[in-house]
Amino acid sequence: MASMRDVAKRANVGLGTVSRMLNDSGYVSEETRSRIEAAMKELDYTPNELARNLYHKRTGIIAVLVPNVSNTFFAGFVDHVEYELYKAGYKMMLCTTEKEFNAEMEYLDMLNRHIVDGVITGAHSLAVEEYRKIHKPIVALDRYLGEDIPVIAVNHKEGGRLAAETLIRNGCKHVLHFCGKVTVESPYHERHFEFTRIMKENNIQTYNYELGRNRLDSEYYKKVVEDVFAKGIEFDGVFGVDRPVIECMNEVIRRHKRVPEDVKFVAYDGTFITEMVEPALTAIVQPIEDLAKESVKLVCSLVNGKVYKNKQVSLKVELRKGKTTII
Amino acid sequence: MASMRDVAKRANVGLGTVSRMLNDSGYVSEETRSRIEAAMKELDYTPNELARNLYHKRTGIIAVLVPNVSNTFFAGFVDHVEYELYKAGYKMMLCTTEKEFNAEMEYLDMLNRHIVDGVITGAHSLAVEEYRKIHKPIVALDRYLGEDIPVIAVNHKEGGRLAAETLIRNGCKHVLHFCGKVTVESPYHERHFEFTRIMKENNIQTYNYELGRNRLDSEYYKKVVEDVFAKGIEFDGVFGVDRPVIECMNEVIRRHKRVPEDVKFVAYDGTFITEMVEPALTAIVQPIEDLAKESVKLVCSLVNGKVYKNKQVSLKVELRKGKTTII
Repeated sequence: MASMRDVAKRANVGLGTVSRMLNDSGYVSEETRSRIEAAMKELDYTPNELARNLYHKRTGIIAVLVPNVSNTFFAGFVDHVEYELYKAGYKMMLCTTEKEFNAEMEYLDMLNRHIVDGVITGAHSLAVEEYRKIHKPIVALDRYLGEDIPVIAVNHKEGGRLAAETLIRNGCKHVLHFCGKVTVESPYHERHFEFTRIMKENNIQTYNYELGRNRLDSEYYKKVVEDVFAKGIEFDGVFGVDRPVIECMNEVIRRHKRVPEDVKFVAYDGTFITEMVEPALTAIVQPIEDLAKESVKLVCSLVNGKVYKNKQVSLKVELRKGKTTII
Repeated sequence: MASMRDVAKRANVGLGTVSRMLNDSGYVSEETRSRIEAAMKELDYTPNELARNLYHKRTGIIAVLVPNVSNTFFAGFVDHVEYELYKAGYKMMLCTTEKEFNAEMEYLDMLNRHIVDGVITGAHSLAVEEYRKIHKPIVALDRYLGEDIPVIAVNHKEGGRLAAETLIRNGCKHVLHFCGKVTVESPYHERHFEFTRIMKENNIQTYNYELGRNRLDSEYYKKVVEDVFAKGIEFDGVFGVDRPVIECMNEVIRRHKRVPEDVKFVAYDGTFITEMVEPALTAIVQPIEDLAKESVKLVCSLVNGKVYKNKQVSLKVELRKGKTTII
């Protein structure tokens, strides 16, 4: 489908000019008009998009579902996905499922009713069965939703291994490990399993602190850290997602312990906030931009009729040495 | 317009059931069917949304334009706006204008062609003239776009005053002030003007460091701070938006100066990252959730035909005492 952008480009005029002509909202010279009309004809551009959608059963809209965009990982993902969709000629509808009961179901319903052409979901609130009922373009970030739905994730097992080896290399003996609930079928649990396995193998005492599901707000993480110290948990190494690790490190600093001499920290995700704190965190970094690019590439090919069976895209993670580990 | 949610509620069944029945995608008992049909009739619910849109010239979609969602202020704003729109029965289309040349124009064009019912714009890339040409529901965050377009902003003048008085109260004599380019017509410049005015009035030496427009990435802020120290600027107080102030504080700490004894910091916006760093920043806090609520309230009333002339909504800012100032 040719876009207004294409018409403007072909006619070698600005978007504003094309818009003014189509909407009769301002002066456009006769000569320019004919150039634009020619371009529209060549590109078979239909200005009445709603009517065109009804005909094509296409809206050019992809829905993106994430728990929220306050979390820096999802914010970065949404930022890149929106840009990639834009370049592919799609608009993005954003839905945050953390606060909105039933929203995930509603968007799947919009998919069924041709309001959106496809869905990229990083949400974790709906039963997998609901997804299995739908045979439409859906791409899942970090979640198993059935053999027809491609899964995009980093190699979380590798991530867990890198984190474990880093803390071991740094001589940690008592490790605090923030991990997510294992209620959702997600590849990211592999990082916890692998981390725990290696720790056990090396006889390193590990305290697994289970975080609540879809709880990504500041207040919650501060409570988690208070709870850790209230429980009197002893640790010389910490591993978990960015936010709780940062809150934990700040409390350790407030208690006048030295980082990294007394306590080592390794963050998972490695979003910009891990480089914004002092000392900068050693982190296992997820390639957010590539995750976005792959998600968009897949959803576009699904929209264009491609069919996948048990498709899984696995991307590399990277260990970024910060100042919260020594070696 | 009744939504599927309303139907499900009225028929006292789950959304999934209504969806299954409408899309014939699974079993629904006869008794339930008739209940749902009754509810649809009572609420005049039309399942074919595209056709309905073509008839009503309504899509139930509001476009939200922001420079990006990696910036924590815009991420928070988008998060709340999406939730408020959802509660009001609207879906949100998100557009980040920082990377996307022409995107802002394209969305205004979609507004003209009834692809979206309204626009909330916090973007700063398009010439104001383009907006003046459009007589459709548009709400502006922190920007003057013409007398027909309501403006939502906090009382930035008050914010500038609170910041200035805080640094003065703390005995600062050489202040580093990160400020935005004054190329855009925006209420937020008032905080700079008021801050600078009060500093001058009190004979306090102020170095105004002008930040680039729509540059919100980490790398940029780190360069800014490097530049500040390369220029050998002497300061005992710092004021600016969250990110550069945080990067600046980290560098001060790395240079073994004491915060707040040697250097005081006051951040503007006061997003969660200002409470995530150690020491927690004293900040002028913008009420992001209220900004979102007001924006949605206004765009909804515009969609419903209300007309505003020179409407400006001004919300209160709050000084939140952190550990980067003494009194």
